[in-house]
Amino acid sequence: MPLTGEEIAKHNSRESCWVIVHGKAYDVTEFLPEHPGGPKIILKYAGKDATEEYEPIHPPDTLDKYLDKSKHLGVVDMKTVEKEEKEESPEEIERQQRIERMPILEQCYNLMDFEAVARGVMKKTAWAYYSSGADDEITMRENHTAFHKIWFRPRILVDVEKVDFTTTMLGTKVDIPFYVTATALGKLGNPEGEVVLTRAAKKHNVVQMIPTLASCSFDEIMDAAEGDQVQWMQLYVNKDREITKKIVQHAEKRGCKGLFITVDAPQLGRREKDMRSKFTDTGSNVQAGSTTDNSQGAARAISTFIDPGLSWKDIPWFQSITKMPIILKGVQRVEDVIRAIESGVQGVVLSNHGGRQLDFARSGIEVLAEVMPVLRERGWENRIEIFVDGGVRRATDIIKALCLGAKGVGIGRPFLYAMSAYGQPGVDRAMQLLKDEMEMNMRLIGCSNVDQLNPTLVDTRGLNMHTTSVPSDTLGMSVYDPLVSPKEKAKL
Amino acid sequence: MPLTGEEIAKHNSRESCWVIVHGKAYDVTEFLPEHPGGPKIILKYAGKDATEEYEPIHPPDTLDKYLDKSKHLGVVDMKTVEKEEKEESPEEIERQQRIERMPILEQCYNLMDFEAVARGVMKKTAWAYYSSGADDEITMRENHTAFHKIWFRPRILVDVEKVDFTTTMLGTKVDIPFYVTATALGKLGNPEGEVVLTRAAKKHNVVQMIPTLASCSFDEIMDAAEGDQVQWMQLYVNKDREITKKIVQHAEKRGCKGLFITVDAPQLGRREKDMRSKFTDTGSNVQAGSTTDNSQGAARAISTFIDPGLSWKDIPWFQSITKMPIILKGVQRVEDVIRAIESGVQGVVLSNHGGRQLDFARSGIEVLAEVMPVLRERGWENRIEIFVDGGVRRATDIIKALCLGAKGVGIGRPFLYAMSAYGQPGVDRAMQLLKDEMEMNMRLIGCSNVDQLNPTLVDTRGLNMHTTSVPSDTLGMSVYDPLVSPKEKAKL
Amino acid sequence: MPLTGEEIAKHNSRESCWVIVHGKAYDVTEFLPEHPGGPKIILKYAGKDATEEYEPIHPPDTLDKYLDKSKHLGVVDMKTVEKEEKEESPEEIERQQRIERMPILEQCYNLMDFEAVARGVMKKTAWAYYSSGADDEITMRENHTAFHKIWFRPRILVDVEKVDFTTTMLGTKVDIPFYVTATALGKLGNPEGEVVLTRAAKKHNVVQMIPTLASCSFDEIMDAAEGDQVQWMQLYVNKDREITKKIVQHAEKRGCKGLFITVDAPQLGRREKDMRSKFTDTGSNVQAGSTTDNSQGAARAISTFIDPGLSWKDIPWFQSITKMPIILKGVQRVEDVIRAIESGVQGVVLSNHGGRQLDFARSGIEVLAEVMPVLRERGWENRIEIFVDGGVRRATDIIKALCLGAKGVGIGRPFLYAMSAYGQPGVDRAMQLLKDEMEMNMRLIGCSNVDQLNPTLVDTRGLNMHTTSVPSDTLGMSVYDPLVSPKEKAKL
Amino acid sequence: MPLTGEEIAKHNSRESCWVIVHGKAYDVTEFLPEHPGGPKIILKYAGKDATEEYEPIHPPDTLDKYLDKSKHLGVVDMKTVEKEEKEESPEEIERQQRIERMPILEQCYNLMDFEAVARGVMKKTAWAYYSSGADDEITMRENHTAFHKIWFRPRILVDVEKVDFTTTMLGTKVDIPFYVTATALGKLGNPEGEVVLTRAAKKHNVVQMIPTLASCSFDEIMDAAEGDQVQWMQLYVNKDREITKKIVQHAEKRGCKGLFITVDAPQLGRREKDMRSKFTDTGSNVQAGSTTDNSQGAARAISTFIDPGLSWKDIPWFQSITKMPIILKGVQRVEDVIRAIESGVQGVVLSNHGGRQLDFARSGIEVLAEVMPVLRERGWENRIEIFVDGGVRRATDIIKALCLGAKGVGIGRPFLYAMSAYGQPGVDRAMQLLKDEMEMNMRLIGCSNVDQLNPTLVDTRGLNMHTTSVPSDTLGMSVYDPLVSPKEKAKL
Repeated sequence: MPLTGEEIAKHNSRESCWVIVHGKAYDVTEFLPEHPGGPKIILKYAGKDATEEYEPIHPPDTLDKYLDKSKHLGVVDMKTVEKEEKEESPEEIERQQRIERMPILEQCYNLMDFEAVARGVMKKTAWAYYSSGADDEITMRENHTAFHKIWFRPRILVDVEKVDFTTTMLGTKVDIPFYVTATALGKLGNPEGEVVLTRAAKKHNVVQMIPTLASCSFDEIMDAAEGDQVQWMQLYVNKDREITKKIVQHAEKRGCKGLFITVDAPQLGRREKDMRSKFTDTGSNVQAGSTTDNSQGAARAISTFIDPGLSWKDIPWFQSITKMPIILKGVQRVEDVIRAIESGVQGVVLSNHGGRQLDFARSGIEVLAEVMPVLRERGWENRIEIFVDGGVRRATDIIKALCLGAKGVGIGRPFLYAMSAYGQPGVDRAMQLLKDEMEMNMRLIGCSNVDQLNPTLVDTRGLNMHTTSVPSDTLGMSVYDPLVSPKEKAKL
Repeated sequence: MPLTGEEIAKHNSRESCWVIVHGKAYDVTEFLPEHPGGPKIILKYAGKDATEEYEPIHPPDTLDKYLDKSKHLGVVDMKTVEKEEKEESPEEIERQQRIERMPILEQCYNLMDFEAVARGVMKKTAWAYYSSGADDEITMRENHTAFHKIWFRPRILVDVEKVDFTTTMLGTKVDIPFYVTATALGKLGNPEGEVVLTRAAKKHNVVQMIPTLASCSFDEIMDAAEGDQVQWMQLYVNKDREITKKIVQHAEKRGCKGLFITVDAPQLGRREKDMRSKFTDTGSNVQAGSTTDNSQGAARAISTFIDPGLSWKDIPWFQSITKMPIILKGVQRVEDVIRAIESGVQGVVLSNHGGRQLDFARSGIEVLAEVMPVLRERGWENRIEIFVDGGVRRATDIIKALCLGAKGVGIGRPFLYAMSAYGQPGVDRAMQLLKDEMEMNMRLIGCSNVDQLNPTLVDTRGLNMHTTSVPSDTLGMSVYDPLVSPKEKAKL
Repeated sequence: MPLTGEEIAKHNSRESCWVIVHGKAYDVTEFLPEHPGGPKIILKYAGKDATEEYEPIHPPDTLDKYLDKSKHLGVVDMKTVEKEEKEESPEEIERQQRIERMPILEQCYNLMDFEAVARGVMKKTAWAYYSSGADDEITMRENHTAFHKIWFRPRILVDVEKVDFTTTMLGTKVDIPFYVTATALGKLGNPEGEVVLTRAAKKHNVVQMIPTLASCSFDEIMDAAEGDQVQWMQLYVNKDREITKKIVQHAEKRGCKGLFITVDAPQLGRREKDMRSKFTDTGSNVQAGSTTDNSQGAARAISTFIDPGLSWKDIPWFQSITKMPIILKGVQRVEDVIRAIESGVQGVVLSNHGGRQLDFARSGIEVLAEVMPVLRERGWENRIEIFVDGGVRRATDIIKALCLGAKGVGIGRPFLYAMSAYGQPGVDRAMQLLKDEMEMNMRLIGCSNVDQLNPTLVDTRGLNMHTTSVPSDTLGMSVYDPLVSPKEKAKL
Repeated sequence: MPLTGEEIAKHNSRESCWVIVHGKAYDVTEFLPEHPGGPKIILKYAGKDATEEYEPIHPPDTLDKYLDKSKHLGVVDMKTVEKEEKEESPEEIERQQRIERMPILEQCYNLMDFEAVARGVMKKTAWAYYSSGADDEITMRENHTAFHKIWFRPRILVDVEKVDFTTTMLGTKVDIPFYVTATALGKLGNPEGEVVLTRAAKKHNVVQMIPTLASCSFDEIMDAAEGDQVQWMQLYVNKDREITKKIVQHAEKRGCKGLFITVDAPQLGRREKDMRSKFTDTGSNVQAGSTTDNSQGAARAISTFIDPGLSWKDIPWFQSITKMPIILKGVQRVEDVIRAIESGVQGVVLSNHGGRQLDFARSGIEVLAEVMPVLRERGWENRIEIFVDGGVRRATDIIKALCLGAKGVGIGRPFLYAMSAYGQPGVDRAMQLLKDEMEMNMRLIGCSNVDQLNPTLVDTRGLNMHTTSVPSDTLGMSVYDPLVSPKEKAKL
């Protein structure tokens, strides 16, 4: 006999805490202190249906994996569960209105457009999770800005009737030199989650990198692939190496063609925009006193298993447990690229984790411009495949990276935004726009295939200058009378 | 017997599509799929009078050239054609009011002023076509900004009572070192189109370059010239070289004194401002699905004939079919200037197509500063005439270009704006303002003729620095309390 | 028999001026011309109770020290003193409302947040005193901005499970490499004054530097320390060296572990924001005519005793009167660091006094980057401890300073703001946030203790560039039509 | 018998044009075409009293000098002249209200403050004349901005109890190293004109330079000097050298101690802000057609006599007609400083005429930093006195100039603004503020007299960088969600 809502509603305290997820009840009383996101968020749903909050940030197998079967209380008769009358906040009402007035997909002409639409129609907390960066978000913004410091020296009078911008990454032929990089919690943006990206990647023949912290399970994402579609795996290394080993070998068996080990996140970053979005105004908790709050946004909650002890010594072990090419994701200085080559991995991603980890880390593209001349001097430029991610928004960004020596670039947030705003058609259009831009700009730079892209086609002299203007002359500027355009006649 | 409106109105579908242009009817049913601008825009006028939309973007001989005579249905009795009651949009009503309050011509004191007025009084789509640039419009803005990085080192105590700023370009004596460069679709700004510029050029004794994509026909523009007025020809090379040959030899016969082959546009650029201006809110077309829309603004529509296969190999052929001096328009790096000299052409225009093609292409003036020292080192500085266009707004910009070694500069948009706002008097005043500024600034820099302009008169140390500031410290700046000026007494 | 309010009220003029402070009456008639803050401010309270104005800017022993006993008139019966009905200004009423709506402490996620809250809830004059800087406040803002010019070159794959960021300063082991630097007039922000900072410093095991110009007396602050808590002393040198000697030797006897002699303030700076905040609109004083007003804000008022004659010659004398380590606070160029080492002091603070003295003085962090290579070349880098203060807001700022060779950093204003907004819990949370940031960022830069921090981990190429952009192109920018995001559908 | 208003009113046309000035009538019919400011402005007052318009821009002896005695019609009975009822424009009414609420003088704490007040209370056209610069006013703003690129390397522990900042310029001992530089049309700001500055200069013992284009006559200004007060003369050289000779020799006889020949103004600059302020909306004059209007602001009107033929060849002639030291005002490059020394003049002013002549001329302070090392290399640094003007607003600016090798600086507009807002007390306070700042900053930089100021005390590495940022990433910035401070609780 199924459980009733009334029964469950009794267990609504720290002493006895039951919750409903997807029509089943669970006793999480003992689990409360272990919950990576803190007990507070669970207690909010004690005795109630938590599905809506639970869904996007837990892969489907979470309860099976982490909660003892004895605590699975069984099916609930959902008709007996009282529906909470949620009063919509004014912000939420405004959001619903914005959704109604959403621009149609054809109005998006570039990747930034999807972000602009997504900002208006996504839930506040979801937007905060996707869009936030570390500390002052300087690095996050620098990532795209860095591309603006690179200018072209295009060739003319080259036959560019046929332009071929296919390339090969880790042995896979792709239509265009980008891949969908790993980003966490896809269901915050779309109820289907990461598989939406899988399908779009298939359509445009690009590689998808599967995130460790996906909302979908790893197998769901692999299953969504079709035919000979290639996927890679992004790995946060677990403190328990046996778990890591199991995950890696499972991925290899399922056919993953690359293992991207994240090396820039021994601890997941503080993202204040995300933290601030979690804050709710329900009562003062000044008495909480001297300890800082644990509810530090989604990022921290889901990442407690990551091993801060991961080091160069672990690389041989990885090489011993898998035949997949190993790529270090998050390399940030020349010395470490050299060490990566010496340790025999197949690639590196020059990346600062989308500006979500260490603020004032330099952009991947800047590091690339520093790395390649050193490698070329040693004749090592072909001993490894170098990727760059962070801030890629235009085909010109891709071309710049390839001119400087990258094999390809990773793109993350823009596809999340396209998916959040328009679902798969959004991601599809985003990719198509990149292809359109790519064809045009390959022509305009005077290259008919990616092998012709080379450093003489770019001017990077402004790239490594991290400077700020002298602080503004407030008084001087406020007394200056700016010049104006001709004045219209007065209205009658 | 003339056709009646009623009759034509029946052919209002994709199956049978007739349109009226300038009082004559045409059957364009079969032409629909071939229309460079896409069938959609024609179908909007199926069974109706399309003259107003057709006029500015098609040269007068278009229908004769491209539509088989059998499809020319003959004269229409326009009295029988129903006038469409166009309801004016609120934007259009506001524009009409702005036109009524337009500043008078004498209020324009510099070239930017015409742009400010034109922005208010031009039709939205026309403004979008003229004012748009590639991608993020970084290069478009950089073009003028680049001049702001060049500063003067003026000489004093030079007798500048008489200032002579005439010069010679490709053998033609002109009053001031600029020419009217080629810009497309003049009738978007003024019903008479490019001939307005022809007349103003005559008055001020400067050269006009005739655009391939003019609204007026080539011959109309040539016919508008008076006396010994000199004109040049800008050429987009057609995939069909026979057409190109016919055009070039016709121009030479008509007396053109220079052939400017555009080399920076194997494909016309994406200009999102232009594309966005075309978007109309009539119904959702989400169902359009995965293909990007073809209606990519005026630029794409009118340029499908351009040959992306044009290459250095074609140059000897051009030299074989004409005796006109050949100038490559759109050269963007030193290596290509050298190659141009080696291939025996008479000139180059250092240009990025007004920032309308490849975003992050450098400004012509920056390329010039890079080119000339290399040429001088080889002693080649006089083997070719070098022009610069893009971003010229002030006489000081012209002087800077000449100091750095240019023979003259091309000016495009400012004259379009002057023409769009005030017709020929506008263009006339714009040119006169440049002459006034030129006289004054020649004096102030201490030179009495253009031969005295030389690199020691400018400081270009900031010119090649393409950098951006560190992203702003949002929190830091928002907590800073700016200094303020003395506070007024309170109002009583 | 106590004095009555009525009696005192008679002495309300320059000829006979009595005031009440903390329930006692004083005859300050003769003292008026000597008052460092000018007579005007006292006369405002002639015949009245001045406690509220007096309290925050005078240490408790001031009247005993500076006013002859004969002028101490004795206890006042406060019931007989008329309470002034202060009509609250609209600004004050708004401030009170802001206090009611103050964010709770947990909403502060970084040090800037405290400043934002404090700005809203502090009294205008108190805020002006704390937040103001010299002249145009360029240096004040540069101090933090300078850190933004330093970028990281983080290491990866280093075992950072355990991160230890304790260090030693002048022999004292501290939990984290910052100290609470000396700032004046703590009671402007909190009725308890500097002892609040003492307690927080104890809790987080960091050193507090006691300011000469504290609102609390020196002994009160020493008394507030617990156990083996370490404090240092900041010293403005008095023109009367005997007073200075007494102060220094008293401090040593009380257990101070460091003597920080301020060397960047022979005269306290003009801070216009502070001066302007003092201005009250009560009647025009245009007649005051040609002399500038003496009421130049709190800073000038309290600092008239400082000796502008202090010079290198005085250093041996200090070394003769105390065994405390001597540190020069406010050193600003390499030459003076070298001279400091040669004169045998134990440390220097590279500082510009929080931007409150000489505008256009460079930031301490920039001077540090210039100093250390010179010292290393001489092998002198360990002959002295180098501290930096000014603009430190993030743990990354601390890490940058340590990478460049500092032993630790001083933090002042942020703790004042935290204290002013939230009292001790505010300071506590501020310190805890720094520790949280520190732990994370040590990991992310790939260092498990502070000894590993070194110059190769930072990129300082932009640091010494003090440049401004070319003044803005007002006309050009105003005629540019910025790109826009997709437009929403019209509201119905 | 005096003339009557009625009689004069008849002569109100181009055919017969009489005007009244200071109670006397003049027949200016024949003079109309010769009027430097154009006939239009005179015709506006034909048959009327023109005194108010005439007064500020003509020295008192103008009519005697330039209008034949036969045209002086004699005294008018002013009672018979109809007073024009001027209806005040809304702008003028607002200005009158701003004057009523003007801050009191003591609220001005720095030189920018006077400018802020003056902007509010001056007549629109007067403000436009004083505040305008050439073209885009880039150089005008660069002048002050350039000082912001220079930073200090202050010395510490120097005895600065006594600070002496007197110095000597061209043999004259002055209290502080600035002089009041020549600026035209003082009566636009104050009815008494330049003599106000004379008196203030006396009071503070600084030199005043008398402008050729003063509102007061030369002798009036000389007469206003007291005791041994020193004045210099600024000279625009007349095409008629006899006039120039007469002027120079008269000045010498009257006791002028320096002849500053302006060399940066062969033609007075176009100042669009000034021109635009003259425009009145009375009727369209589109018909004016193709010639640009002559009414180009005050500057052009008053300067037609200036000789654009002035050259180095004239210098010996000047040396032959006067014994006054000769200084070239407006030198802008090293080569010309060297030539000035070689031609035996006593000084140069590195200046760009306050940014009113050639836009993109560099600042005087930047040129100084370029000049001095070259002179020092030749051992010529003492062969000439070098002054700088343009953009000086703070004592730190003066100190920077002296550190770099200037003998003193000229200050112009700030005193005009102080005078326009507050009359002589304003100028007096402005000078006193500079002295106060000077004393403090001399101390803070660690120098007790001006001889100690030297190049090692400044960091000028950013000075010669004239760069602009890459044009802004409009889309990218508009989609970025800036970080925010803690949110207040909602209002109830």
